[in-house]
Amino acid sequence: DPTLKVFTLNSNKELSKEIAEHIGIELGESSVTKFSDGEIQINIEESIRGCEVYVIQSTSDPVNQHLMELLIMIDALKRASAKTINVVIPYYGYARQDRKARAREPITAKLVANLLETAGATRVIAIDLHATQIQGFFDIPVDQLLGVPILANYFSNKNLDDIVIVSPDHGGVTRARKMADRLKAPIAIIDKRRPRPNVSEVMNIVGNIEGKTAILIDDIIDTAGTITLAANALMENGAKEVYACCTHPVLSGPAMDRIQNSSIKELVVTNTIVLPEEKKIDKITQLSVAPLLGEAIIRVHEQLSVSKLFD
Amino acid sequence: DPTLKVFTLNSNKELSKEIAEHIGIELGESSVTKFSDGEIQINIEESIRGCEVYVIQSTSDPVNQHLMELLIMIDALKRASAKTINVVIPYYGYARQDRKARAREPITAKLVANLLETAGATRVIAIDLHATQIQGFFDIPVDQLLGVPILANYFSNKNLDDIVIVSPDHGGVTRARKMADRLKAPIAIIDKRRPRPNVSEVMNIVGNIEGKTAILIDDIIDTAGTITLAANALMENGAKEVYACCTHPVLSGPAMDRIQNSSIKELVVTNTIVLPEEKKIDKITQLSVAPLLGEAIIRVHEQLSVSKLFD
Ligand SMILES: Nc1ncnc2c1ncn2[C@@H]1O[C@H](COP(=O)(O)O)[C@@H](O)[C@H]1O
Ligand SMILES: Nc1ncnc2c1ncn2[C@@H]1O[C@H](COP(=O)(O)O)[C@@H](O)[C@H]1O
Repeated sequence: DPTLKVFTLNSNKELSKEIAEHIGIELGESSVTKFSDGEIQINIEESIRGCEVYVIQSTSDPVNQHLMELLIMIDALKRASAKTINVVIPYYGYARQDRKARAREPITAKLVANLLETAGATRVIAIDLHATQIQGFFDIPVDQLLGVPILANYFSNKNLDDIVIVSPDHGGVTRARKMADRLKAPIAIIDKRRPRPNVSEVMNIVGNIEGKTAILIDDIIDTAGTITLAANALMENGAKEVYACCTHPVLSGPAMDRIQNSSIKELVVTNTIVLPEEKKIDKITQLSVAPLLGEAIIRVHEQLSVSKLFD
Repeated sequence: DPTLKVFTLNSNKELSKEIAEHIGIELGESSVTKFSDGEIQINIEESIRGCEVYVIQSTSDPVNQHLMELLIMIDALKRASAKTINVVIPYYGYARQDRKARAREPITAKLVANLLETAGATRVIAIDLHATQIQGFFDIPVDQLLGVPILANYFSNKNLDDIVIVSPDHGGVTRARKMADRLKAPIAIIDKRRPRPNVSEVMNIVGNIEGKTAILIDDIIDTAGTITLAANALMENGAKEVYACCTHPVLSGPAMDRIQNSSIKELVVTNTIVLPEEKKIDKITQLSVAPLLGEAIIRVHEQLSVSKLFD
């Protein structure tokens, strides 16, 4: 059996430590620094010849920096004769650029898949890939894990009464359905539409939310426009209170102000993306994906099915 | 004949404009911006279907940002049916990581070559690739242009008396020889050696520099340690005055202070890398590579040999 080694890069050092602890091994010795001119310098400080190597890195902001760290690390591991190079990408950046929505657009999510393979990755483990189709952008095995069980488990332990799971848009209904199944709750959908061109959108709510505790769920919360408008619409239409949750807390630009000023009572996120100190506010609860990723790594190493993690 | 189009990205907009003017065309309409979370957004605002496209971008600091802009642009051009995608990289970043100097090092210069090809580049035009071997990292045609003729021409017009061209280390002797041929001057070499381990280096000068005007030449000046120590050694050993020149002014970290405080009379560089305002000091003269790159593009377009540019 090849020796299992886990390395971290710079995006998620704490998470990586937790994952290594879960597995019961030490993180591999390495350092990722910058030369004076900003070029990335990677040193792997132990032999990995013939090993099964896992590298943990989210391609979160600064995305280009984090992606290049990952690509250069893969290159170094490949040249140092790693047996397999498994990249664990808790948050896969550029996932929203997954199709040509307009003429002459790049499909950066596919480009990134090609870059990872070219560098030498032999497997990808990721959480909530925004579009499941991104699995098909790769010609190597991709294990997609889900944030829903972790989020659902948290709300389940809260023992909230009379809940309804709400998708903030049409694209997220399947995710809301998965959450609702776990919480044995009904679903509702925010149905935005523009009655005429150049007229502002109308928020229509499909499903019964009156007097209920609404839990909004999305995969990514970026500028938080969608989720906070949805929360306000739910309150205006008679919801008792509104919780929100997502897997990936991108929280860029106006996100924090919007969340603070919204009617969201609590926002539950995971640690696929690190929250800097200024984003650690009372309203936000962060759950760890370390046990999930740790189990996934153990199962891949033992050649067991990863989908069993969701039973 | 396919239509020739030239696009710029964010690293060298002024240079790109100059190149387009030299060729006598307008730059292609495009914009490269960032989404709120730092991901790159590229819009190509004119059809390039069936065109021969040139994209100008140095992978200078911030290197990972500039490299990803280039890769995403190539992806967009490929999907928009460009006939050929010629990447013009005045300064090729990561060029110094071109071999495994220690165990488990990446070879990032090769990785970058693979990434460019994977994205869809069909030709590379670059200036002074640090190691000529980097051409061999690509499986597509690479035209390497040289900075020496531009630098030599500048010094030739200065009509300096009794000059000697000096290489600051063993690796740069071939470059110094090329410069010396053009200026009909002799060469000298700074021969650093460490007499014993843990003893500081001794600067020995091979060649006659006494009473002469020395011109130091290198390809890259990064932190400027090598070049300023060399200049001081030349003055201490009896040179009349010391000029220095290089193609790529990386000038990171302590470089500007070192240059200001050194015995270098004038530092001559090119604009393969943009100098921000604070680096535009009296001691530094910047020469344009726009005519060189403009001619190279015209010659490639007309299927003529690019090496003729050096006759
Ligand atoms: N980082 C980003 N931030 C905001 N919008 C993006 C980003 N990347 C891609 N997009 C756009 O988001 C849209 C896709 O989002 P979605 O409909 O949620 O899959 C496309 O129109 C993209 O151009
Ligand atoms: N960006 C950089 N800044 C400083 N040193 C570097 C950089 N990239 C690579 N190196 C190191 O520079 C050495 C190669 O430089 P050279 O001998 O000039 O080709 C190698 O030992 C590299 O590890």
